[in-house]
Amino acid sequence: MVNQQTSLDTVFHALADPTRRAVIARLLIGAAPVKRLAEPFAMGLPAFMKHLSVLETSGLIRSEKQGRTRTCHINADRLATAEDWLSEQRAVWQGRTDRLAEFVESQNLPNE
Amino acid sequence: MVNQQTSLDTVFHALADPTRRAVIARLLIGAAPVKRLAEPFAMGLPAFMKHLSVLETSGLIRSEKQGRTRTCHINADRLATAEDWLSEQRAVWQGRTDRLAEFVESQNLPNE
Repeated sequence: MVNQQTSLDTVFHALADPTRRAVIARLLIGAAPVKRLAEPFAMGLPAFMKHLSVLETSGLIRSEKQGRTRTCHINADRLATAEDWLSEQRAVWQGRTDRLAEFVESQNLPNE
Repeated sequence: MVNQQTSLDTVFHALADPTRRAVIARLLIGAAPVKRLAEPFAMGLPAFMKHLSVLETSGLIRSEKQGRTRTCHINADRLATAEDWLSEQRAVWQGRTDRLAEFVESQNLPNE
């Protein structure tokens, strides 16, 4: 449970930044080398590498070095942990609004 | 677009903490006064109020004061913005894996 909480902490933290979300969106299309990933962003490579480090810590991406090129890959399962948590919350909310609707119906109020 | 990004930033940031996620899960069941919300957590009220402040800034919850009691309510629509973003990403990923499966099938490899 503690591990799951820590995992959600780091995944949601990683998602709380537009650069990191854009990197995820890009990697979902396919793996890419760091240099190409960094191109669209108006920031230095050290700043960009910090974002990649946050993403790797969260487990949302992984990277591997071949020769002088480091290539990043998405870990879609990790993204699913965040979506699963949100889906569970929505189910609770949906259940509540359904019960409210049933209650209102059960009162069988006459139409005006 | 910038507003939407800022909104996602603050929502995901708010979700990146177990206390704040527990408050959200509690409020999805129904509104509650701050004092009762704080009870399960082993922290002082000032620390807890900081968490509520992060949640209010993100728009995930709102609160109203009546007399001496401040009551918190969930804003489920805001939670949906985070889930929607994740669903969009999953759709991209699903499309990619579907195309990969189609490609493999199209190769019509003989069974061993």
